[in-house]
Amino acid sequence: MRAAYRAVRSHTERLAAPLSAEDQVIQSMPDASPTKWHRAHTTWFFEQFLLEPHAPGYRRFDDRFPFLFNSYYVAAGPRHARPRRGMVTRPDVATVGAYRVHVDAAVDALLADEAALPREIATIVEIGLNHEQQHQELLLTDILHAFSENPCLPAYDPDWRWCAAARAPGTVMIPEGIHTVGHQGGGFAYDNESPAHRVLVGPVAIARGLVTNDDWLAFMRDGGYDNAALWLSDGFAAVQAEGWRAPGHWREQDGGWHVMTLGGLVPVDRAAPVCHVSYYEAEAFARWSGRHLPSEFEWEVAARSGELADAFGVVWQWTRSAYAPYPAYRAADGALGEYNGKFMVNQMVLRGSSLATPPGHARATYRNFFPPSARWQFTGVRLASFPA
Amino acid sequence: MRAAYRAVRSHTERLAAPLSAEDQVIQSMPDASPTKWHRAHTTWFFEQFLLEPHAPGYRRFDDRFPFLFNSYYVAAGPRHARPRRGMVTRPDVATVGAYRVHVDAAVDALLADEAALPREIATIVEIGLNHEQQHQELLLTDILHAFSENPCLPAYDPDWRWCAAARAPGTVMIPEGIHTVGHQGGGFAYDNESPAHRVLVGPVAIARGLVTNDDWLAFMRDGGYDNAALWLSDGFAAVQAEGWRAPGHWREQDGGWHVMTLGGLVPVDRAAPVCHVSYYEAEAFARWSGRHLPSEFEWEVAARSGELADAFGVVWQWTRSAYAPYPAYRAADGALGEYNGKFMVNQMVLRGSSLATPPGHARATYRNFFPPSARWQFTGVRLASFPA
Amino acid sequence: MRAAYRAVRSHTERLAAPLSAEDQVIQSMPDASPTKWHRAHTTWFFEQFLLEPHAPGYRRFDDRFPFLFNSYYVAAGPRHARPRRGMVTRPDVATVGAYRVHVDAAVDALLADEAALPREIATIVEIGLNHEQQHQELLLTDILHAFSENPCLPAYDPDWRWCAAARAPGTVMIPEGIHTVGHQGGGFAYDNESPAHRVLVGPVAIARGLVTNDDWLAFMRDGGYDNAALWLSDGFAAVQAEGWRAPGHWREQDGGWHVMTLGGLVPVDRAAPVCHVSYYEAEAFARWSGRHLPSEFEWEVAARSGELADAFGVVWQWTRSAYAPYPAYRAADGALGEYNGKFMVNQMVLRGSSLATPPGHARATYRNFFPPSARWQFTGVRLASFPA
Amino acid sequence: MRAAYRAVRSHTERLAAPLSAEDQVIQSMPDASPTKWHRAHTTWFFEQFLLEPHAPGYRRFDDRFPFLFNSYYVAAGPRHARPRRGMVTRPDVATVGAYRVHVDAAVDALLADEAALPREIATIVEIGLNHEQQHQELLLTDILHAFSENPCLPAYDPDWRWCAAARAPGTVMIPEGIHTVGHQGGGFAYDNESPAHRVLVGPVAIARGLVTNDDWLAFMRDGGYDNAALWLSDGFAAVQAEGWRAPGHWREQDGGWHVMTLGGLVPVDRAAPVCHVSYYEAEAFARWSGRHLPSEFEWEVAARSGELADAFGVVWQWTRSAYAPYPAYRAADGALGEYNGKFMVNQMVLRGSSLATPPGHARATYRNFFPPSARWQFTGVRLASFPA
Repeated sequence: MRAAYRAVRSHTERLAAPLSAEDQVIQSMPDASPTKWHRAHTTWFFEQFLLEPHAPGYRRFDDRFPFLFNSYYVAAGPRHARPRRGMVTRPDVATVGAYRVHVDAAVDALLADEAALPREIATIVEIGLNHEQQHQELLLTDILHAFSENPCLPAYDPDWRWCAAARAPGTVMIPEGIHTVGHQGGGFAYDNESPAHRVLVGPVAIARGLVTNDDWLAFMRDGGYDNAALWLSDGFAAVQAEGWRAPGHWREQDGGWHVMTLGGLVPVDRAAPVCHVSYYEAEAFARWSGRHLPSEFEWEVAARSGELADAFGVVWQWTRSAYAPYPAYRAADGALGEYNGKFMVNQMVLRGSSLATPPGHARATYRNFFPPSARWQFTGVRLASFPA
Repeated sequence: MRAAYRAVRSHTERLAAPLSAEDQVIQSMPDASPTKWHRAHTTWFFEQFLLEPHAPGYRRFDDRFPFLFNSYYVAAGPRHARPRRGMVTRPDVATVGAYRVHVDAAVDALLADEAALPREIATIVEIGLNHEQQHQELLLTDILHAFSENPCLPAYDPDWRWCAAARAPGTVMIPEGIHTVGHQGGGFAYDNESPAHRVLVGPVAIARGLVTNDDWLAFMRDGGYDNAALWLSDGFAAVQAEGWRAPGHWREQDGGWHVMTLGGLVPVDRAAPVCHVSYYEAEAFARWSGRHLPSEFEWEVAARSGELADAFGVVWQWTRSAYAPYPAYRAADGALGEYNGKFMVNQMVLRGSSLATPPGHARATYRNFFPPSARWQFTGVRLASFPA
Repeated sequence: MRAAYRAVRSHTERLAAPLSAEDQVIQSMPDASPTKWHRAHTTWFFEQFLLEPHAPGYRRFDDRFPFLFNSYYVAAGPRHARPRRGMVTRPDVATVGAYRVHVDAAVDALLADEAALPREIATIVEIGLNHEQQHQELLLTDILHAFSENPCLPAYDPDWRWCAAARAPGTVMIPEGIHTVGHQGGGFAYDNESPAHRVLVGPVAIARGLVTNDDWLAFMRDGGYDNAALWLSDGFAAVQAEGWRAPGHWREQDGGWHVMTLGGLVPVDRAAPVCHVSYYEAEAFARWSGRHLPSEFEWEVAARSGELADAFGVVWQWTRSAYAPYPAYRAADGALGEYNGKFMVNQMVLRGSSLATPPGHARATYRNFFPPSARWQFTGVRLASFPA
Repeated sequence: MRAAYRAVRSHTERLAAPLSAEDQVIQSMPDASPTKWHRAHTTWFFEQFLLEPHAPGYRRFDDRFPFLFNSYYVAAGPRHARPRRGMVTRPDVATVGAYRVHVDAAVDALLADEAALPREIATIVEIGLNHEQQHQELLLTDILHAFSENPCLPAYDPDWRWCAAARAPGTVMIPEGIHTVGHQGGGFAYDNESPAHRVLVGPVAIARGLVTNDDWLAFMRDGGYDNAALWLSDGFAAVQAEGWRAPGHWREQDGGWHVMTLGGLVPVDRAAPVCHVSYYEAEAFARWSGRHLPSEFEWEVAARSGELADAFGVVWQWTRSAYAPYPAYRAADGALGEYNGKFMVNQMVLRGSSLATPPGHARATYRNFFPPSARWQFTGVRLASFPA
């Protein structure tokens, strides 16, 4: 557990390393957070839920930090308004680094005698590390958004490259049958993956491969963004209000489409999976294709079959399932009960994982969720169809 | 069919009869429509989809009306902006009455030889009548909203009274089992009730009776509206932004709670079912009760058992199901395909029917839907619980 | 005074006569008011400030009316929110008519023995009549705005016609000199016209005639609405936010410019004075012309010279003067002190009067005022220039 | 001129020196700008208007900088949106420092032979230096605003102290008379101070001293912020919308009023002049005092008398004059003509200067201007009264 702790924590620092103090302090929109805030918030998480209650004699690094770095845990006390996170130039980046060192030392000491650790502590460390891994992905999506707002379009990593989508034609057929979905057995899972429960799934065919930029360009050429008949009403309203003509981070320039990436602005790679599309766009694209998006359970059953290509590690895949509690779900008491449950409305479930998801953080039961208009995550499309 | 046509059409006129020309012209919020508009729009529906394509020699009553009275059918041509419906003082109420007479005469003539009618025409008449019945309910909810914005709080019908909730303790137990949900067999249903399909439901217990105002007052006394831990995050944001302290149309006055009704302002009746609550409130109340809201399929199975009290005709009942297409659902081509499908996001399903739903318009497979913040409809709560 | 009272009051009713109950109830934007409200508010003014304090035994027509029909007099008690004035379908138009009759009878009785009337009463009657005359003009501008929001573009008076601008070339030269501006001597004036005071005016040349539609079309052809260099920064922001391409109520149709008037939509008359332009547009036009707008005192001195054409009765003329108190101005105590003083910021002064101004309501010292973006009044342009 | 250039430029760097890279990059509201932006924009000003047209062989430091650091000069080309200035983490602070060095070297070379310089160049240098001085004041007001948004309330300079107001009872009496106002004679002035022209001023009495915090606390205790009768209508709307209960940057804490300053949060000093009040508040305070605000010309004449205390160097003083062009004012052609003229609406004139105004940047004819709701500048109040 100490090794896992050190590995996750140092990965965050590696991700932040290419970023200057200036890069780390700004907030480019209310939904995104500064790098510095991600680094401090994940640290506060351990201080608040692990060290304060369980490490005798622990001294808080700074009494102002709970207010500054609590995100949305009402039960953990008052907190800085989310849209103002970019105002915190002080404490500076160096102090946040020192905060991390301070907390890491205390956690390391607490975990020294792993055999003697109560189960409760192991549970908190485990959720804290998974929590930090989520923020590792957000750190990347948020800095990409910030850099896309800079007219100079800087690169986070000049060597960063898109992977091509796997060539995986055909579909996985799922006949009608009862399956148990959700988390069971060992290993970590969030509370929103439980209780595991039985559902009737299928018959449905799930595409083995992801939708590519080439597919998407065909949709665009066919007037996809202009044809109201293809869209949900709220979706077309977003198209018009936001002026969407292409996926997020795409820019037409010098006669061709480019995309802002962690490697800076590059020409759109036709063979790569489409990315930075909202649920609205995914759904319209599916209708234009004469197909559908899979439900989250259809996806889960198909993923378990082992026959999907690019299920993990490329782009999150929108499902047609609204984010909702599993039957008999009840959030835990206390602040950690706010982790997932209170967001179960007005969002859609995504399954799989993306190239920005840290290693070890993906599984078939994982439920990611974003509002249907969100485009700044690494979000793509896998199609489904129903047998006639 | 002629008789059905006449019955539905004249019911609309009876509902509008207590309202003056001034009452009928205003629009109290973008989501509500003027009475006059409801009367004209339902008439345009028959003119546009029945008479124009199928009644040889039919002459439109007024060439400006398609623009004025199309609601949201993009494929049926351009239309007046929804939030500006209250600007149409001319054509006046009398002209709209004449429009109804004109269209009714043409439809009556078209339907004269019922035996000879093509199936297509019967289908359009049927959907047109069901469409008008939906607007009959909206006519009442919208005028109630308009009157609630008038400081004089006028009564639509001074004799209008709330019914008490049925005394129906206990629950209906649904063991785990596969059920076919959605519309099958004869009779009219909307496309969103199809395709019928098999789902696994249960085990779950559904309350036989509705939540009452008495129950709700206990929630309020217990600080329900102040306790963030009971709410979805978006829900508590709505509570704070809108200043919700009680259900919609409630007002504290002279030391007690009153509610604005179609009969004017009256004291809250503790035995009556709670009404005008949003999904957010319903969901928070369920959590406070240690229970849940039923899914739409749990509700449908329970309703078919015949053991629910007040399933129909009192208040619509929020379910925990987001409004989504049934598997393999595909909207019809053309303008009528816009009827339901394009709204299948960002809304929650309600089941049953309300005291404002016209006779004959309710069934166990009916899917009503509103955004989770909506409070101006006749919306209430039925609880569910999962066996331990 | 009785005769004056009867004349003004009956003129309001004549102006409202062509309007149906539906026309009279709606509010087309927060800045405009329903006709019915104008009729009731001007009546409340006499009830509140004349009858209640000065008519022994007077009984209010309806105790709810002070709340409904007070406009902005904080000291006169709470009032209905301005943007909700269009929600008041009840009391209906007939009841408002009865309210007018009730108050008129009481005022008539109070004024019966004119010789015995205290000066205070005469003062209130006088301000009440002038107040009602202001609302007579607003009644017309507001219904024109409402009708312009109706896709059918109804005519208030099908026989209504624009007058041509007077042919009045040349300028009135005002050499430098001290003048007394503001109200002095007899006759009614608002408090904002006082105290009369001495100012240094000139040298300046004021155009004898008004800017015409012909002039304005030249400005448009020259790209006036596209050239940021001609505009105040806030003005060009308004051009872009509102999409202004021509004066208010203008519409391009069938290959030519038309304008929505009290007589319905008619082709733009090139010889007529330009109307429905904002201060921003007037100011940009003046810059494009190589000239300026006059100050309010330059206008006043020029108007007194008797050499201006169309000074009154055609269009209000924007000045370059912000609306501010005259030196040593102090508003009266009590509610009537709120009449003018509290609006003396963020508005520009207009001088003259318009074709919608009732007879007898114009004078050289009159100060009208609107925000620089307002276009729904009868507002036009007179130019000035400074000798080199 | 070289010495002046070096002095002004190095003063900017001294002001920025206490600020970290993180402090310098953020933008706390659309009206404020990052420190780094101020440093770069003032440099661009010399590059754009001096070096590019007049320094043969000058090479731009970076071709992207004109887009990034042009503020609002439409004629100088496209520019980054003002509210996004805080997104520019790269170029970093060090690069902006290098930009300053690069431009300074080129200017220094250009000015080497001062005797040979054409008048045009001297003019541009002069306006560039005055421009930079304006930004020196904004740099301080903007960083104070940014720090006030940080829950840690950092100090820009821990040793910073408010000065007490001068003890200067009594008034300066100005009898009626014609005065020439505006800039004449030698020395630099902005175009908005011209043409000098004759106006009639007085009789009026101008307070010798400024309104103090002690005076303001009396206004607060008397319910000033709750009494609508004291306020302009727009002003009271701002009080309610913004929740104003005290001047800007004031906070009630530990039972007493504190104020956020460049030295951090300190108790309000009763003897100090009130600061960070809007025009709306200044105007309401004047009414409550039974007095008025001076006009800008009254202030100018009084200031020239030499009898005012704290006319300069403490707080800017709101006048009752809206910001408008002087008679016959015409902005210069080209981009520099946008400097002042296009802002002459919707703002009020302030006279004097503040403790944040750099030395040598104040004069009796100087016209500062801000919208009536602005509170983040160093703005205070001097009263006037009219003889009975």
